[in-house]
Order: sequence, then structure tokens, then C-alpha cells
Amino acid sequence: MSNIFFLVPFASLLALAFAWVFFKSMMKNSEGTPRMKEIAQYVREGAMAYLKRQYKVVTIVFVILFILLTIMAYFNVQNPFVPIAFLSGGFFSGLCGFLGMKTATFASARTAHGASQSLNKGLQVAFRSGAVMGLVVVGFALLDIAAWFLILNDLVYTPDNMANGLHFLGLDFVHAHPEYVVNGVISEVGEKAKLVEITVTMLTFGMGASTQALFARVGGGIYTKAADVGADLVGKVEAGIPEDDPRNPATIADNVGDNVGDVAGMGADLYESYAGSILATAALGASLPALVMKDAGLTAYQAVLAPMVVAAIGIILSIIGIFMVRTKESATQKNLLNALLLGTGGSSLLILIAMIGLVMLGWVTWGVFWAVVIGLAAGVIIGQATEYYTSDEYKPTKGIAKQAQQGPATTIIDGIAVGMYSTWIPVVTIVLGIMGAFWAAGGAQHFAMGVYGIGFAAVGMLSTLGITLATDAFGPIADNAGGNAEMAELDPQVRERTDALDMLGNTTAATGKGFAIGSAALTAMALISAYMEEVRLWFDKIAKTGEGFVTKGGYVFYNDVVPAVEEGVRTVKISAASVKDFSAAYDITLFNPLFLGGLFLGAMMAFVFSAMTMKAVGRAAGAMVEEVRRQFREIKGILEGKAVPEYAKCVEISTRGAQREMLLPSLVAIIVPVVVGATMGVAGVVGLLAGGLTSGFTLAVYMNNAGGAWDNAKKFIEKGNYGGKGGEAHKAGVVGDTVGDPFKDTSGPSLNILIKLMTMVSVVMAGLTVTLSLL
Amino acid sequence: MSNIFFLVPFASLLALAFAWVFFKSMMKNSEGTPRMKEIAQYVREGAMAYLKRQYKVVTIVFVILFILLTIMAYFNVQNPFVPIAFLSGGFFSGLCGFLGMKTATFASARTAHGASQSLNKGLQVAFRSGAVMGLVVVGFALLDIAAWFLILNDLVYTPDNMANGLHFLGLDFVHAHPEYVVNGVISEVGEKAKLVEITVTMLTFGMGASTQALFARVGGGIYTKAADVGADLVGKVEAGIPEDDPRNPATIADNVGDNVGDVAGMGADLYESYAGSILATAALGASLPALVMKDAGLTAYQAVLAPMVVAAIGIILSIIGIFMVRTKESATQKNLLNALLLGTGGSSLLILIAMIGLVMLGWVTWGVFWAVVIGLAAGVIIGQATEYYTSDEYKPTKGIAKQAQQGPATTIIDGIAVGMYSTWIPVVTIVLGIMGAFWAAGGAQHFAMGVYGIGFAAVGMLSTLGITLATDAFGPIADNAGGNAEMAELDPQVRERTDALDMLGNTTAATGKGFAIGSAALTAMALISAYMEEVRLWFDKIAKTGEGFVTKGGYVFYNDVVPAVEEGVRTVKISAASVKDFSAAYDITLFNPLFLGGLFLGAMMAFVFSAMTMKAVGRAAGAMVEEVRRQFREIKGILEGKAVPEYAKCVEISTRGAQREMLLPSLVAIIVPVVVGATMGVAGVVGLLAGGLTSGFTLAVYMNNAGGAWDNAKKFIEKGNYGGKGGEAHKAGVVGDTVGDPFKDTSGPSLNILIKLMTMVSVVMAGLTVTLSLL
Repeated sequence: MSNIFFLVPFASLLALAFAWVFFKSMMKNSEGTPRMKEIAQYVREGAMAYLKRQYKVVTIVFVILFILLTIMAYFNVQNPFVPIAFLSGGFFSGLCGFLGMKTATFASARTAHGASQSLNKGLQVAFRSGAVMGLVVVGFALLDIAAWFLILNDLVYTPDNMANGLHFLGLDFVHAHPEYVVNGVISEVGEKAKLVEITVTMLTFGMGASTQALFARVGGGIYTKAADVGADLVGKVEAGIPEDDPRNPATIADNVGDNVGDVAGMGADLYESYAGSILATAALGASLPALVMKDAGLTAYQAVLAPMVVAAIGIILSIIGIFMVRTKESATQKNLLNALLLGTGGSSLLILIAMIGLVMLGWVTWGVFWAVVIGLAAGVIIGQATEYYTSDEYKPTKGIAKQAQQGPATTIIDGIAVGMYSTWIPVVTIVLGIMGAFWAAGGAQHFAMGVYGIGFAAVGMLSTLGITLATDAFGPIADNAGGNAEMAELDPQVRERTDALDMLGNTTAATGKGFAIGSAALTAMALISAYMEEVRLWFDKIAKTGEGFVTKGGYVFYNDVVPAVEEGVRTVKISAASVKDFSAAYDITLFNPLFLGGLFLGAMMAFVFSAMTMKAVGRAAGAMVEEVRRQFREIKGILEGKAVPEYAKCVEISTRGAQREMLLPSLVAIIVPVVVGATMGVAGVVGLLAGGLTSGFTLAVYMNNAGGAWDNAKKFIEKGNYGGKGGEAHKAGVVGDTVGDPFKDTSGPSLNILIKLMTMVSVVMAGLTVTLSLL
Repeated sequence: MSNIFFLVPFASLLALAFAWVFFKSMMKNSEGTPRMKEIAQYVREGAMAYLKRQYKVVTIVFVILFILLTIMAYFNVQNPFVPIAFLSGGFFSGLCGFLGMKTATFASARTAHGASQSLNKGLQVAFRSGAVMGLVVVGFALLDIAAWFLILNDLVYTPDNMANGLHFLGLDFVHAHPEYVVNGVISEVGEKAKLVEITVTMLTFGMGASTQALFARVGGGIYTKAADVGADLVGKVEAGIPEDDPRNPATIADNVGDNVGDVAGMGADLYESYAGSILATAALGASLPALVMKDAGLTAYQAVLAPMVVAAIGIILSIIGIFMVRTKESATQKNLLNALLLGTGGSSLLILIAMIGLVMLGWVTWGVFWAVVIGLAAGVIIGQATEYYTSDEYKPTKGIAKQAQQGPATTIIDGIAVGMYSTWIPVVTIVLGIMGAFWAAGGAQHFAMGVYGIGFAAVGMLSTLGITLATDAFGPIADNAGGNAEMAELDPQVRERTDALDMLGNTTAATGKGFAIGSAALTAMALISAYMEEVRLWFDKIAKTGEGFVTKGGYVFYNDVVPAVEEGVRTVKISAASVKDFSAAYDITLFNPLFLGGLFLGAMMAFVFSAMTMKAVGRAAGAMVEEVRRQFREIKGILEGKAVPEYAKCVEISTRGAQREMLLPSLVAIIVPVVVGATMGVAGVVGLLAGGLTSGFTLAVYMNNAGGAWDNAKKFIEKGNYGGKGGEAHKAGVVGDTVGDPFKDTSGPSLNILIKLMTMVSVVMAGLTVTLSLL
């Protein structure tokens, strides 16, 4: 193994070290007045109470899944390392959520206090705290990957173990192929087969991250909107008190919600994409046909390690980028945005330079370089499109505000139309990105290399996640700082400064959401391709000779066409008896009704899952509304500010609501791919995943953008347009915003997870699916 | 050719004859008082003015497309009969729209007059008038099919012409295969090749029907909602006058809209599905491999004619069903519904008996019989699910009404959630239907037979269209009769009776919409399969030897797997040079980025198309609102009923708005498949169609059902629930209803067309796509 691999654990530890440094330096700042501390303490306690409860539920689910996976491993339909890998993926993702929340809730009062000194100080505290989240995510994800690779490569699949067959773990593929080990040394073919086994096993640890992300996103999304709606409907509308007013019992829950949804939820989402894209690309690298690798001048190790190395370099450059973010005291909104852009843009540019270096060293091809360029560009374009369709500086959102003059119905219709229309740029970008990366890296003649390129587009888009996530996570911190300043009744100047930071955060959050869904699409794409490798591997293990489509090169999956071309002539022997069972299950064409049925079911899953999460918000919010009304009614003097509301009660209700409501949609997302796999085979699963990906992506973009546009249209009216606050247009705008809340903060982001999780579940269940297909 | 074929022209002429009889008998009824006549005259003039203008636009589009198709034929990328077939399909569909509208507008006052005598009389007039629409649609569609089959089979592809090669028409496939004619007689192989050529050519006449349907649905959808919103927002809400009040200038336009959208639009939509499903199934029948046909004991002629024969029998049984619909004088709502169900159910049952007869005669297999059963059952299930999710007798709609108490935002959220959730039954039904028909008719071992079965499921679902369309079209007639009664100030008892008929119409309309989208999905499915036959044919004509994947049986499309099985062993020779060009274009697998890109674009098309149609309604309605306001302002005495409003002006505005707004979305729907075909080849097209079908279907069900549920939730509140008319819940309900209007009457139904039209365009452009792929 090359020494360059050690860049991977090094970079991940470096990320964690800098996260620690940033955390410590943030903690050195004062939390300000006792009142500020008190409020921060409430939010912190609420957030931790939520996390504690969520992790309890998640632990139960993990234990159940662990047992199931272990049983499957016992029956040889699962690799024995998978249950443990599953746990490690879930554990590290959960740890990141915990650390990110901890940091964010420590940072809000400090940011408010910093802003009371200067805008720059406020930005520094908030942004560096966001960077903690960004760095722990990339750090732990890459550390987990590096550790597993070292364990499997250097401890499990040693020449010794392989020579002895490793029977006890069911890893008997080596035993079945004595030619893999020659004189105690692994042959070239054995080396490659080993790497396929390792990467495909590692891939499944992504399911732990996925499951964790599911609960974080769905639970967080429900929590934050239940609290928000409760605080707004009763506090703002019925009682007429302003936002973030301490007299509102739901106000702490609302502030907790920002952390739960936008920090922990977003972090877990991107943790999953980050780990998933690297692992999938490594698996695709290991599966490159020998001839293709030779043509590209790569070794199997290089093809597997390259995505990890790119990620490692990305971490180092992200840290540099984070240091580049600073601004003058007299900074305008534009200056602030430019400061952030300098950081993210700078590190992206540096990545490209580093990639050229890797090409020169012969670690990746020029085609892969271009795939990375395409991935980075796609991220920027989708972000910009999101900005265009949701910012009040452009026509679409202004148009919604204008329609608000005619009442709520036209506001809704126009917002839905804007959201649906806005899908075109992201979809076309993803399509061009997928096709561009494919053609650049390999094209039809080097099909497997092209698919590997698609994986690299995802890795490229996410390579600077350390800093992009920092720009995302800083938003809710600034938002909470504003809340803190408001409740602690600080000088209005402080609120103005935190508002400036918050607005900046809204912009980065919008682009961040586009980035999250874009990376989810590319990651899912890579995962689906890797899924077929997993199926191939299991088929290889389980099927007896004569089953399936036997070719001299292996089993006919249609992406075998290219190696066959290289052979010039291929003879396909088909036994009619075996085809009866397999043609339908393995024929991934449109004419296979199982595949087409899967496509339909995938599209439906996106809609039904959205419906479930929206309904969940409605129910959880209903409970919150009642509680806030109860407190206003029963606690005397609450509205005069003479009595302290029972904040914890509201936090509790939102927490309980979120936990209860997240279960059903989550279980559906986990169970449906398993059921489809068991009943409709591989073809049905691939259809389900492709349908879920394409419909889910489009639906998510629509919901995110419609929600964002409604939100900003309302704010645009509040700035004094079309009658300003309190006018008829404003009332209509509030209706739009309320409808948009679950769109953009619950259902839309949850779809990212659905897309990836269904794929991950399918990957992990591939052994079962193949076994059942062969019965 | 068997004598049984003559059942086809006979049944179609019979349908037209009965349509004439029903029309004449309807016309014998009196139109009632002079005031009733006057109002009916207004509506009739408005409807005809609309149609006239629409046909002008459509004619221009047809002329342009005709020229383009002729140029393509000249350059040998189009069959020379296609331009004329295209025109005939468009002409007959347009004629049906004209006749249906004419009948409906003649019938409304007569229905009102009938209802003033008795409920049964009203039902008879309205239903028999609806039956005129149903029968002209099936009559002309089948007549066109029969005529083309006779022309092509008995005039063009005669043994003489085939022996002489038919060079002048570019139909040189026979010339290239002299073995097709032996001693002046067509050989068995030649007979089959001939039928493929004929059916695939005929298939393209569906594009004329599709184009016509596009403009009818989109234009009609925009018209009806622009008029409706204009009438409601200004008349009902601002001026406070009741529905259908003659003082409202938009009231005539509103009544015209019911005819334009629900009669002409629905008719053209189902005309397209009906013709498309029969033609696609015939093409699939002709393409059945010889071995498969032999196994099934069918001749090529039988396989081609069977769908037409089933349709012919369906017509005869529909006519019988129509006569079965009658009710007692004291009929309740339930009696009325049962009367209709007796008609539709009775004819469906008779179809099954007739199918058994066909099996006995050896014309179809038992598998096909079951496919027809499945198709009929799927139609019923989707209709019932629609009923459940949109009727105020069930939980979902009641839940929306309950949410309305908390204001418009929760009403919208809940409606959207209900709509999204409601997609599951129709999707699962279609999936089970497709898989069931496939397995019943052929399964993996007889793949082509299975696909033929899917086509028959569509034919089965639509076989009794003559009567199901009658139950659909009678709704708007009853609705208009109510309007007429209201404006003519008849006895309230008359209005009560027409209201009973109207409510019945709403139920059948809801199930009708489910039926329309369900049949669109199955038809599109059959069309996509037939598309591949079209591609194969063109490939055969254009490609030189050595291009593509040459197998001994032809070209490798993946559905070739089964015939290969029958051969036992297959040798695939691949020339690397040719694969470079084709593997990507013809490799319809998920790993082909062109296919996956197409899937994404298909999903996007559904959303963007919906956005465009919704925006169009908004703009057209805005113009209408202004016009109604202007009339109230400028025409003195209009509100006191002393001055007559300028009805024609409103009709004019709605018409102009609809015509202007329908062009852009329509052009997008036509152009995108061509562009995708030219740039992304066959794989891209198939992806686009599959993505459009699955996402479009799900989106359409969601929009239809959300719209229907909002509408009925509002009506439920108006019945006195949750505060009744004028309360806060009612206001929120009105907002939901207004949002739902373009959902259920414009965008949702237009998606049916999008799904089918994109496929039809692809079928017609297959020659161009293949040619460009080979450049």
C-alpha cells in the first residue's frame, strides 16, 4: 500500500484537532450578561433533552437492526463485518450530531456577546463554531473509513488468512479460489478480488450513517416546525407578541428547533452523503475491469484509495479556507457574503490545483479530474439556481409577493408554480453532470470508468464539505444569537448585527439546501451503481454453476457489454431452466415489468413519504398550539412578563411529538426496499431506487424552493412592500410561509435521506435479495 | 383475412348510427321557455366561438407538423403514409370534440326542461346526450382504425405491390426481402413483416389524436378555470351574488367552460387513449416472435386484429349498457348511481363473457382474457380510490374540512398531504396491473406475449368507453342545465332535480378522472413498448450490416433474451467500432447515463409542465377578474338586473387567454422528446418516457385528488359543518377550493396528455432519432 494513504487518517485527525482548537477558542469568549447565560442554558438543556430522547429511540432501532443483521450474517446472507460496521457508522454520525449541537448551543450567547463588540467579532464566533460542525463531520467520517480500511486490509485479509481460507467468517471466496494466493503472496487477481470484498463490505457501514441521518432529519424537521408553528400561531398571531419574545412559552423550543433541524439534521444528512460518496466510489474503483485499469494506467489500490485521498486533501484545503473567512468592521451584507465566498471558492480552487498534482503523480486520470470539476461546478450552479428562485431580489419571489395582494389562494398557487418550475435548472444540471462526468472519465467504451467518474463527481462536490458545512451551520447559530439578544433585551444595535449575520445565514442555508440535495442525487447515483457490484458479489457467492446467465467473464449484467467488446467476440450460453428464474429478476430493462413496477413504486414513495412527514408536522404542531394556549390561559401574568412560562413543557411536547411521529415514515423508508427486494428481486429494487431518486430529487427541489420563496416573499412584504406588515398582502404571505415551513424544513430535506437510505438498505440487503431470488 | 374483422367497421358504424339516433331523440325535446332558449343560445355561441378559435390555432399547428412530417418522409426518415395518418387522427378527434360540444350545448336547456317534468326525464336527456359523446368517440376512433387497416392491407401492401417492391413510397423493405413473396403469394414470414409495417405505421396516426387532445385538454383546462375563478372571485366574493346568477358577466363563460373542459377535453383525452391502446396492442401483436405465436396457437392476423375485435364487441355492449340506464320517478341519489352502475357494470360483465367466447374461438389466449379482467378491475379500483380520497363521506376530505377551522394554511397543508398520500392505491394498482397482465399473458418465458398482455389490459380497461364516457359527459350537461334553470328563474324544484343529477355527475367525474389517468398510464406503457418495435423497424431499414449489435436473430435489444433462450445458445458478435456509436444509444439499462438522464428529465417535465399550466391559469384568470370588475363598474344597473352584462366579452377573454397560454406548454411537450431523441438517442428517449410516465402519473393523481378533496371539503362545510357558509372555516375552505381548481381541472388532467403525447411524438420521430444516432 502506498504511503500516500496515510494522508487519509492524518487529514481526518487534523480536522478533529482543528475542530477542538476552534471549539476551545470559542469557549474562551464570554457568554455575556447573566440573563444571556440563563437563556442560553435553557436552549442548551432543551437541545440536549431532545438529543437524549432521540438517541434513545435510535439506539433501540440500532439494536434491532444489529440483531437482524447478525442473524443474516449467521445464515450467510450477510458479511460478518457488516453488523459492526453498521454500528460504527451510526455511532460516529451520532457523535457528530452531539458535538455539533453542543458547540452551537454554547456559541449562540457568545455570538450575541461578540456582536455587541463588533460585527466581525460576531461573525468570527459564529462561523468558527459552524466550522467545528463541518470539521467533526468530515473528520469522523474519514477516520471511520480509514480505520475500516486498515482493519480489513491489514488485519483480516492478510496473505496468511487468505491462504488459510478464513472459513470461520464465511469469507470463503478466497478458499474457493486457491489461485488468489501464490506461494503465500496474493496474486494480482487476488488483490483485486480482495479489494472488491473490502470496499463492498465498507460500503455497508454507510447504512449506519443513513439510519442515524433519517432520524435526525425527519425527527429534527418535525421538531423544528412543530415548535415554530406553535410559537407563531399562538404567540405572534393570537397573542400579538413579537418573535423571540420571552413571554412566549414556545420560544425556547423554537430556538432549540433551529439547532435540532439545521445543525444536527443537516450535519447528519451531509455526513451520510460524504461517507456514502467516498465509499461508493472506492467500491466502483475496486470493480474496474483489469483491462480498463491497465488502459488508464491505474493499479487497483490507486483506484480504491483515490477518492479517500481526494477527500483528505479537501479537508486540509477546507481548513485553509476557514482561515480565509474574515471581514472588516464596516462590513456590508455584500462584504460578509464575499468573505464566505472567498473561503468556499478559494478551497474549491485549491482542490482543482491539487487534483492536477494527483494526475501528474498518476493517481487519477484526466477524466477523473474533469469529473471533479464537473461535480464542483454542479454544486455551485444548483446553489445559484436555488438562490435565484428563493431570494427576494429576483423575479420569482417578488412575483409571489405581488400575487399576495389578491389573497392567500393566489399566493399558494404562484408559490407552487414557482417551486415546480424551479426544478428545471437543478435537474438539467444533474443530468449534464452525470453525463459529463461519465463521458469525461470513460464514456461508452470504458463504461466502468465512466461510472467511476460519476462517483468522483459526487466526491468532488463534497470534497470541501468541511467549509461548506461551516457556512451552513453558522446560520442557525446567528439566528439563535439574535433570539438571545432579543430575550436578554440587549441594545438594538446588537440585534441589527445578528440580523445581518442571520440574513447571510439564510442565503447560505438556501444554497446549502441545494447543495445537500445535489450531493444526495450524485451520491445515490454512485450508490446504485455500487449496488450492482454488491449484487454481483453475492451472486458470485451464492449461485451455483449454471444458474443465471453464465458467460466466460462472469454473469451477464448489461454493463458487461464493454469488457465483452474488448474481447471482440463473446459466447453467451443460456440454460433455459435457469433463465426462467433469473431473466426477470436480472434483466434491468424497461421492458421488464418488475423494473417498471419498481420505478412507479419509487415515484410513489417520494410522494407518500412527503405526505407522512407533512401530516406529522401538522399533528405535532397541533399539540404545541394547545399547550401554548393552555399556558397563556392558566399561568397568570405571563403576558405582562410577570410570570415565567414553562419553557421545558413546550420543549418536551415538541420532543415527544417528533419522536412519535418520526417512527412511521422512517420504518416505511427502511422496510419498503426490503419488501420490494424480497418480492420483486433485483430488477424491482433498481427500479425502486431509480424512481425514488429521480422523482424524489425533483419533488425535493420543488418543496425546498417553494418553501424558501414563500418565506422570502413574506419577508419582502414585511420590508414595506405591497402594504407592509399587517396588510392584506402580508396576511396572505403569512399563509404562504406557514404552508412553506414543512415544505422546506421537513419534507423537502427528508427526501434527501429517503433517496440515499433506500439505496443503502438495498445495498445491505443485497445478499438476502439475491438469495431469495435464487430460491 | 377473417370475416370477423368486419365486426370492426360494423361496430364503429353502429356506434355512429346510435349516436345519431340519440342526438335526434334529444333534439325532439323542447328547450323550454324563451328565456331558457336565449341562455342556451349564449352558451352555445360561446362554446362554438371557443372551438372555432381553437381549431384555427390547431390547424396552424397541424399544417406545420404536416409539412415537417412530409419533409421527413421525403428524406426517408418517415413512412410516407404518416403525414396523412397524422391528419386523419387529428381530424376525427376534432370532429368528436365538435359534435360532443354541439350535443352538450343543445342538451342543457332540454335537460332543464326535462327535469321540470320529472327527474327520470332529466336523467334520460342528459345521459343520452352524454352517450352521443361516448359513441362518437369510440365510433370515429374505430372507424379510422378500420379504414387505415383496410387501405394499407388491401390496397397498398398487396401481393402485386409487394412483388414489385413499392419503391416509390420508400417502402423498400419488401424489395430488400424478395423471399417475402413466393410465386406472387406472400409467404408466412412476409405476411408477418407486412403486418409489422402496417401496424407501426398506423400507430403514428395516434399522434394526430394526441396533438388534438393536447390543445383540447390544456386549452380547455385553462379556459374553464379562468372563467370559473373570474366568476367566483368578483361575482361571488366581491359582489356577493350567487352562483350562476345572470347578473354576473362571467357566468356564461363559466358555463361554456364546463363544456369546453369536461366534455371536449375529456373526450379528446380518452379518444387518444382509446385509439392509442388499440393501435399499440395491434403493433405489439404483429411483433410477437413466430415461436411465441405458434406456442399460443395464434396467427399474426389474429394477434393484430384481436384488440380491434375486442373494442368492436365493447362498442356493441356499451350500446346495450346505455339502454340499461333508467330510473324510477321517485329515484334517490343512490338509485341514480345504481342506475349508472348497472349500465357500466353490466357492459363490463358482458365483455368478459364475450372474451370467453373469443378464447373458445381461438382468437385470444386465456392469458389475454385475464389481462382484460385485470385491466377492467384496475379501472374500477382506481375509480373507487379516487372516490374514497375525494368524497366528503370519507375521512380524508372530512379531515381537510376539520383543518379548515384553523385557517387557510392548515387547509392547504392537509389537502396537499391527502393528495400525496392518495397516490398509493392507484400506483400499487397500476404496478400490480402491469405485472399481473404481464405474467398472466406471457411471463418471463414468453416476454413478448407478456407485453402484448399489458396492451390488452389497456384495451380491456377502455373497451366499454362508449358507456363510461357517457357517464362522464353527462355531468357537465346536468351542471349546465342547473345553470340554465337558475338563470331562467325556473321553479326551485327543477334546480333541486338538476342538482341531484349534478351531484351524481360529480361522483362519476371523480371516478372518470381516475379512469382517465389509469388508462393513460396503461396506454403509455403499451406505447413505449411499441416504440421499441418502431425503433427496431427503423434500425432494420436504415442501419447497414455490421452496425449495432448484430445477432443472428437481428439486433440485440434486451428483450431479445427470451427468443435466445429458445435457441439454447446464442453467439453474439460485436464489432468494437460499431459499438462505440451504439452501445450508449441502445443500451437501455440503468447504468447508461443517457437513460438515467432521460429519467430525470421525464420527472422534471411533469413538474415544469404543471407549473406552466398553473401559471397560465393565473394569468388568464387575472384578465378575467379585471374584465368582470370593469363591467360592474362601467355598466350601470348591472347589479340591479336592469342592464344585460356583456357575456360575449368574457367568453372572448377566456378564449383568447386559453389560446395564448396553451401554446408554450404544448410546444414544450412536443419539442422536448424530439430534442432528447436527437441529442440523447433511443436510451434518452426511453428514459424520458419512463420518467414522465411514472412521475407524471403520480403527480397527476396527487393533483386530481387534492383538488377534488378541497372542492368537496368546501362543500361539506357549506352543508353546515364547522360553522357552515360564511364562517371562518368556510373562508379557509374557499381558499383550498381555489388552489385546487387548477390542480384538478387544468394541470392534473393535462398530465394525462403529456404522458401519452411525449410517447406518441417519440414513436413518430423514431426514424429521425435512429438516423441521427447512426450518423
